[in-house]
Amino acid sequence: MYSLIDGKATAATIKAEIAERVEEIVKNGGRRPHLVAILVGHDGGSETYVKNKVLACEACGFKSTLIRYEDDITEEELLKKVDELNHDDSVDGFIVQLPLPKHIDEQRINEAIDWKKDVDGFTPVNVGRMSLGLPSFVSATPKGILELLLRYNIPTSGKKCVILGRSNIVGKPMAQLMMQKQWGDSTVVVCHSHSPQLKEETRSADIIIAAIGRPDFVTADMVKPGATVIDVGTTRVPDASRKNGFRLNGDVKFDEVAPLCGFITPVPGGVGPMTICMLMTNTLQAYEQFAK
Amino acid sequence: MYSLIDGKATAATIKAEIAERVEEIVKNGGRRPHLVAILVGHDGGSETYVKNKVLACEACGFKSTLIRYEDDITEEELLKKVDELNHDDSVDGFIVQLPLPKHIDEQRINEAIDWKKDVDGFTPVNVGRMSLGLPSFVSATPKGILELLLRYNIPTSGKKCVILGRSNIVGKPMAQLMMQKQWGDSTVVVCHSHSPQLKEETRSADIIIAAIGRPDFVTADMVKPGATVIDVGTTRVPDASRKNGFRLNGDVKFDEVAPLCGFITPVPGGVGPMTICMLMTNTLQAYEQFAK
Repeated sequence: MYSLIDGKATAATIKAEIAERVEEIVKNGGRRPHLVAILVGHDGGSETYVKNKVLACEACGFKSTLIRYEDDITEEELLKKVDELNHDDSVDGFIVQLPLPKHIDEQRINEAIDWKKDVDGFTPVNVGRMSLGLPSFVSATPKGILELLLRYNIPTSGKKCVILGRSNIVGKPMAQLMMQKQWGDSTVVVCHSHSPQLKEETRSADIIIAAIGRPDFVTADMVKPGATVIDVGTTRVPDASRKNGFRLNGDVKFDEVAPLCGFITPVPGGVGPMTICMLMTNTLQAYEQFAK
Repeated sequence: MYSLIDGKATAATIKAEIAERVEEIVKNGGRRPHLVAILVGHDGGSETYVKNKVLACEACGFKSTLIRYEDDITEEELLKKVDELNHDDSVDGFIVQLPLPKHIDEQRINEAIDWKKDVDGFTPVNVGRMSLGLPSFVSATPKGILELLLRYNIPTSGKKCVILGRSNIVGKPMAQLMMQKQWGDSTVVVCHSHSPQLKEETRSADIIIAAIGRPDFVTADMVKPGATVIDVGTTRVPDASRKNGFRLNGDVKFDEVAPLCGFITPVPGGVGPMTICMLMTNTLQAYEQFAK
């Protein structure tokens, strides 16, 4: 019988641990960690994400500030705000919620963020530092997956970990984390959706991390009995039986794969809830490492 | 019959191509690309490396400047020079030859270098930019290997590439290059010397890149017939028959592995000669992208 990896419960535990740590800090006369979110425009998805980030801050005892701009803000104005936050000692970390309006160069904004406040872990400096094994902020999804593996005592050292997908936000950083001695210490394989060796590779994997965004891509014949399967996929699939008309579908054909697994994450409720939680962990880390 | 990948000849060809491009630039009224090397102290190995870099600059028609310091230079003085070079429009790229004396924090010096002049490709910003697929300077050894694969028309897209070793200067950047669509586009496996799956992985590899620094580690039973084997190892092994008392030994047991291969690099004369050559390529790239 497989074990379900409960991301929701794990995230709640971690947020409670952070809140406890923050109360200790405050009791000792320290200020609360402070996360700032910049939201440009009124994209529905972004509104929800940012709202959830603010709620998570409250749950952790952080101070949070939401800075809103209309979508006619210029790139220069936004860069000025980034620079201001970089130099604001009362701010430990900040995020610029994506997507940004088309007239703003997202990469330019990203690169302007001081890596010491880049709690999203998306700046080139943080990506490079992580790759080099230097102190850094690891982006939320890969960090959340590693945390789940750790908290469920799933061995990674010397194991074969196959990563499906090579995106900048999941596949590539996940590979970096899993290969390094101080983190996964695994033999790491990175496949993409058209790798000819894909099935052979997944069939010999102790851990499969699926992040290609294709619903039900990983089927039972691709999984070794006893393997751990982490499903990062969250594709919206039309579903008339749901009130909102869709459901979130993972990259793994859960019903047929789960019975084979040692551990498996569900979608939703697996990796998803960990991401905002890891943003909180990173904010606390920024506070503890760099607060003046 | 296997084909030998001749790094020495390839490097000579590339340097001739660069020299031709530089003469074209000069003919059109441009200045020559300019590489600066900082050498601290009198380490014998460093002296040789820097001398060879200066000679390569001459071969390419670059201007080169060697800045020498005694090994009592302070970290602050060195940082000041780095800052000066960062802002010197007559300098396209510069390198600080390692190792540095123990009282100087190499990482701090490295991080002070502007990525646009970091032709060694060792700064976190460049490592991160490369990982993210942004314009960047790729460090010499992985770049040289990719160049050899390209120039010998060895297919990489969709192939299985097994990398032995996960160092910051070879294994990790090599994995990044080989996995990305715009470069290797391979299925990439990163093993280390104690990966339990090592033999299975190498035996199914189309391309093996050995960079673990263990002489003769890769043996015939680890290689699939027809595979391409790239040997990055250069361990000094005592050899009484040599005038200097040692020979350079690769990570691959050449005599028994070579007959199985489609392509193989010798040691010396394979990857080695490509590294300084790639420093030249990066310097030209810095000039063409950023010179004012």
